[in-house]
Amino acid sequence: MKYGYFDDKNREFVITRPDTPTPWINYLGCDEYCALMSNTAGGYSFHQDPKDKRITRFRYNNVPVDRPGRYIYLRDQSSGDYWSATWQPVLKKKGYKYECRHGMGYTVIKSKYSDISTEASYFVPLGDNLELWALKIKNCSKKTRTLKIFTYTEFCLWHAEMDMTDFQYTLNIASAVKEGNAIFHQTGYAPKFGRLGIAYFACNKKVSGFDCDRETFLGQYHSESDPIAVEKGKSFDSIASGGNPIASVSLPITLKPNETKDVVFILGVADTKEEAAAAYEKYLNEKTVYKKLDELKNYWGKYLSSYQAQTPDKDVNSMVNIWNQYQCRTTFNWSRFASYYEAGIGRGMGFRDSNQDTIGVVHVIPDRVKTRIKELASNQFKNGSSYHKFFPLTKTGDKGGYSDDPLWLILATAAYIKETGDVAFLDEKVKYVDGNPAAMYEHLKKAIDFVLSEKGPQGFTLMRFADWNDCLNLGKDNEVAETTWVPLLLCLEIQEFLTMANFLGKDEDYEKYSKLGEEVKDNFNKKAWDGKWYIRGIDKYGQAVGSAKCKEGGIIDLLPQAWAVMSGVADEKRALVCMDMVKKYLDTKYGIMLMTPPYKEYDEKLGAVTTFAPGLKENGGIFCHSNPWAIIAETMLGRGEEAFKYYKTILPATKNKIADIYLTECYIYSQFITGKDNQNFGRARNSWLTGTAAWNLVAITNYILGVRPDYNGLVIDPCIPKAWKSFKVRRIFRGATYDISVRNPKKVNKGVKSLVVDGVKVEGNVVPVFKDKGEHKVEVVMG
Amino acid sequence: MKYGYFDDKNREFVITRPDTPTPWINYLGCDEYCALMSNTAGGYSFHQDPKDKRITRFRYNNVPVDRPGRYIYLRDQSSGDYWSATWQPVLKKKGYKYECRHGMGYTVIKSKYSDISTEASYFVPLGDNLELWALKIKNCSKKTRTLKIFTYTEFCLWHAEMDMTDFQYTLNIASAVKEGNAIFHQTGYAPKFGRLGIAYFACNKKVSGFDCDRETFLGQYHSESDPIAVEKGKSFDSIASGGNPIASVSLPITLKPNETKDVVFILGVADTKEEAAAAYEKYLNEKTVYKKLDELKNYWGKYLSSYQAQTPDKDVNSMVNIWNQYQCRTTFNWSRFASYYEAGIGRGMGFRDSNQDTIGVVHVIPDRVKTRIKELASNQFKNGSSYHKFFPLTKTGDKGGYSDDPLWLILATAAYIKETGDVAFLDEKVKYVDGNPAAMYEHLKKAIDFVLSEKGPQGFTLMRFADWNDCLNLGKDNEVAETTWVPLLLCLEIQEFLTMANFLGKDEDYEKYSKLGEEVKDNFNKKAWDGKWYIRGIDKYGQAVGSAKCKEGGIIDLLPQAWAVMSGVADEKRALVCMDMVKKYLDTKYGIMLMTPPYKEYDEKLGAVTTFAPGLKENGGIFCHSNPWAIIAETMLGRGEEAFKYYKTILPATKNKIADIYLTECYIYSQFITGKDNQNFGRARNSWLTGTAAWNLVAITNYILGVRPDYNGLVIDPCIPKAWKSFKVRRIFRGATYDISVRNPKKVNKGVKSLVVDGVKVEGNVVPVFKDKGEHKVEVVMG
Repeated sequence: MKYGYFDDKNREFVITRPDTPTPWINYLGCDEYCALMSNTAGGYSFHQDPKDKRITRFRYNNVPVDRPGRYIYLRDQSSGDYWSATWQPVLKKKGYKYECRHGMGYTVIKSKYSDISTEASYFVPLGDNLELWALKIKNCSKKTRTLKIFTYTEFCLWHAEMDMTDFQYTLNIASAVKEGNAIFHQTGYAPKFGRLGIAYFACNKKVSGFDCDRETFLGQYHSESDPIAVEKGKSFDSIASGGNPIASVSLPITLKPNETKDVVFILGVADTKEEAAAAYEKYLNEKTVYKKLDELKNYWGKYLSSYQAQTPDKDVNSMVNIWNQYQCRTTFNWSRFASYYEAGIGRGMGFRDSNQDTIGVVHVIPDRVKTRIKELASNQFKNGSSYHKFFPLTKTGDKGGYSDDPLWLILATAAYIKETGDVAFLDEKVKYVDGNPAAMYEHLKKAIDFVLSEKGPQGFTLMRFADWNDCLNLGKDNEVAETTWVPLLLCLEIQEFLTMANFLGKDEDYEKYSKLGEEVKDNFNKKAWDGKWYIRGIDKYGQAVGSAKCKEGGIIDLLPQAWAVMSGVADEKRALVCMDMVKKYLDTKYGIMLMTPPYKEYDEKLGAVTTFAPGLKENGGIFCHSNPWAIIAETMLGRGEEAFKYYKTILPATKNKIADIYLTECYIYSQFITGKDNQNFGRARNSWLTGTAAWNLVAITNYILGVRPDYNGLVIDPCIPKAWKSFKVRRIFRGATYDISVRNPKKVNKGVKSLVVDGVKVEGNVVPVFKDKGEHKVEVVMG
Repeated sequence: MKYGYFDDKNREFVITRPDTPTPWINYLGCDEYCALMSNTAGGYSFHQDPKDKRITRFRYNNVPVDRPGRYIYLRDQSSGDYWSATWQPVLKKKGYKYECRHGMGYTVIKSKYSDISTEASYFVPLGDNLELWALKIKNCSKKTRTLKIFTYTEFCLWHAEMDMTDFQYTLNIASAVKEGNAIFHQTGYAPKFGRLGIAYFACNKKVSGFDCDRETFLGQYHSESDPIAVEKGKSFDSIASGGNPIASVSLPITLKPNETKDVVFILGVADTKEEAAAAYEKYLNEKTVYKKLDELKNYWGKYLSSYQAQTPDKDVNSMVNIWNQYQCRTTFNWSRFASYYEAGIGRGMGFRDSNQDTIGVVHVIPDRVKTRIKELASNQFKNGSSYHKFFPLTKTGDKGGYSDDPLWLILATAAYIKETGDVAFLDEKVKYVDGNPAAMYEHLKKAIDFVLSEKGPQGFTLMRFADWNDCLNLGKDNEVAETTWVPLLLCLEIQEFLTMANFLGKDEDYEKYSKLGEEVKDNFNKKAWDGKWYIRGIDKYGQAVGSAKCKEGGIIDLLPQAWAVMSGVADEKRALVCMDMVKKYLDTKYGIMLMTPPYKEYDEKLGAVTTFAPGLKENGGIFCHSNPWAIIAETMLGRGEEAFKYYKTILPATKNKIADIYLTECYIYSQFITGKDNQNFGRARNSWLTGTAAWNLVAITNYILGVRPDYNGLVIDPCIPKAWKSFKVRRIFRGATYDISVRNPKKVNKGVKSLVVDGVKVEGNVVPVFKDKGEHKVEVVMG
């Protein structure tokens, strides 16, 4: 545990030294206001949209890493020595003590230096579009100390993309001025939507100086590490008219021995100055601030209580009960839009991504999921296809041509209905991008119709630009390349759709799509089998991709194997063979690679996947999002050892001990881990925003622990390691609380021998729906 | 002279301290390879195209400013102390001596620290796609010194735009490895054109260590100021596979007292490693290197000898004979594509800009100008309109809808023919973007036809997206807003066209366009006069812009005044009145503002101009490009005092003494100087790439000194301050050298009283064309 540990009681991850191998991040804010926050206070904030309403600036891929942020400098006015309350950006080496606690929606960073201890709590209070920096400073020495505090944050002029690229323009549009005790920032930038409003920075104590102009505060050839204002101990009271606006205020603090003082800083957005004042004035009293922090903690306590498991594995418990759920909420909020690796300008909210993200939160916030599904459906065209992504603030969609996109709407809708029982949702109407409102049921049917219509020469689905693997671009400039994986997704989604059709009594549809689904399945089994596994697609020259015959690389790909099993398309024999080949060729000590061997040079007929260095990303990397599909497949085959091993291998909590190899946060999933063909084997990249979060939560809760919602109740179907003697799950389902104990006296992997609900034996493995909002005891014995 | 001085003898600007108010830049490379180079070795390099073939990385708007660059660290192996040969990035304060000499295509930075002196010469040798860093190190102490040298430059993965914005992608595509004594860098990035090739970094001495991976060399939470490798005195021999590739090599240097050693580093691009080796091996001998530096100096000496003036004003001489011509060549090379302010990704080569840039170089490199004009003409559509910009590497054009663009082709063509006499050029054929090849003459006619067809309700030209003022967007979402300035440009270009038609004997065209020109002129005079000046346009609601009646701001705009005079559209009375109003309302101690008063808040009917803070850019800034138009107008009115005062006011050489206000380089023009309505009045921004360069050269040479090429000879028509007693111009014209002496015994502003050529009196003021390549003495007396 070189860098930190889990404090599950407080639902915190505690980082014990500031120089983590990469910045270890938290997301503050559950709603429209979002703040990316590193363990040393780096990161940026945005309101509603990281592209068009970026509030503060962050320099991606910066040297030094992770600048700027939400900085508080302390200066000893007698010695002139100065340091940071969050280590960065002054980076004191000797005599500096540090601790960071990333919690649910908040981060607390403690420091001690020169006998002055600080505790800076950063969070976004529920219900307001602002963030609070609440600082406690204590004099631990035996003499009175005269200090001065300076803050620093850089504004981003709203439009993050222009701010990164169009300097001759952006450096002439901004202003920042001090009025009263607050700094107000505006730009002349013409918004694409309503009004831009203002950003503000306020303090609950009277400030003695300020700076709004970056170059004045820092001084030319200086950096955040050594601002000239802090060096000299005096703000310049500069304003910004053009240039780089910042919010820096300074104030003197005198502390008697053992005295502690509080200061609160408030950074936020509002439409008008009056609205801003109304918002920040609520937080001028620090007691209110800490009460709001408690409120936030309670909110998350309640959130997480919807699902709690007790397993024999401590790492599993930390992840499933706290961090995996927390990450799921973050990916649900922001899709792949803004992280420390995604610049927050191009990706927007993904259609495919956002649909998948719903399955990680539907058990807690089904209403929000419903709203999101409708928002996604409104990005579907009347022919059944959809935009690939959309920008929530400007309500604009973008790009099409991904062969899998529309089908994911069915997955999300099915999960929502299974969780809530809200079958009536299928009758709710949503407008197509280019058409009239239609029932959700029609949306789903059209998605299937569209994909069915995209049939290639071999009867698989046309690849178009790409499928789930964005970088496998077989189809560019042609109309014949095919994906073998989309047919599997199609089979699975048709099954979900059939259940809905059945529920609604749509017999004709049921019959029609049953038959169509069988055809897709038969064609796949007939043509996609390569001898020991399924191929991944057919390129534009008619050659198989993901086949033992491939010469450039990529002889086996995880997707068609895992999904042939998940979708029930593979018979048992082939299922076992192909998953054994996954183990043989793709499994490594750090996780299952997406494909192997990696491509060595750019190949236009395979596309972007061949632009990556071997072992990175989709080119032979351990692409984590796809690992839970192998886990789920293994549970379906009853192989609890394999399933749990795969699960545990990429579990972030297990990476703490190899943090110097893994590099990214050990409390949340990353997009990929470097594969074995790269010198950096085992190194993770692109943490936080990944479909890995939702799918791993589903893999552990619904398939390994095996407690999963269905139309008529809660299915109990665990698939666990034989060594597990028992585990518990406590979960809310349709308003009632299910307290589930599972015992495994016979040391099996799978199989429910008996099920007792509230003391009464139940046949089969489905716990019924209770509408009483009460608590129900469920006793399960495996065997 | 706080920061530096002109060394005209060596054609250098000498910077005497490193901490200039902004980085003071030079451009290295006259051809396909371009290196932006600051006075402390910051900046980046590209080959052919700063967007798609960016070689090294630069972080725009960085903190600290101007990173990274072409760095050489020196480390004293006995003390462990280390510093930079170019001040940045180590930024030593005490005991560090420094001098930078920006010359023509090269920069030499000298340092002395700890009794070690260095001289680093950076340049791009003629004829090769590489840059040389030639270092001399001398031990000035009395004991033997053991040093280690480390280099540092960051590669940019070729695609600069992705490199700035798409980190989850770009950080996985690059590689850099050491082979032999060189580092080679490639990416998997799929090029949009041919092959990407490789970048390499070589050294003429055997290196003892290397690093190709940025994070390894710098160390996490370190920066270029304190790389861990330099701190420890040892390279890690890292390679890059994904991540951030760099080129760092290290080698030991031992120096006896007074000993000097040479090391040469070579950074370049090539298609293959073999080609790379063939290129850099030429420079392994340092004698060759310094010989190539001399060759470069000679090239520029010859270049500048095409035009040399001796005036009574030293600042004028420095600028016109050296720096203004040098800047003109740079803007000709790179239009507005890549500078310290233009990120090199969006602007490409401007159609309007590049046409204007030709007039600053046509006297020296007419063949290149001809090629450029044809390239520009190939971006014209068959209806006469044109792309707004194009990307030379990928041969793609972009954007239209600028109402003035096509007309500038006439200006460039006219200047080319006047300089060369190559009337036959008008018959050369160039293909339209969407049509067949057509004679240049037809291209020009179509440009006029197109603009004539764009007539608005008041008979002015439809504004469309914008005219020369990109930010005055009156026409968005409508088809009625008009520009009054384009009709003036049209009148001027029609006159140029008529001369050509006349030359070719196209009588019908001559008659037709004479009449059409008169109509445009009459309509303008009838409808654009506001009482004391001309209005700037008509917005979509039919309201005048640039009128005394305007309420939002912008009551007077420089353009219609200067151009009404330049084009001869204004009669003498109105000409004098409107130019007096320019003096009254727009002139300031730092230059002529583009318009006044500035707009205070965003106004959709005026567009982007209203997004700028008051006094910046087009919103009441001193937009330098338009100042020479006022100067030329004043010379046409014979007002030599006004003309020269305006010229001198924005002359960079005069800014040396106010460098702390002006901030940018005092040896080249900037795009704008902040206007009087901003706290930073007098501060310049966006240096180097601006139409100001070419137009000011034309203003001083062709209009103030008044020696200008025409179809049949060299017109002598000075308009100077009365106090000037004499001046000389030596200029090459159509192969012959004209040695021109002008005397002004009567202290007049304007008027040639007598003209003697080779001892023979000539009537009028035109010196004839000599085809003898000889030297000719021209004696002029004003009066």
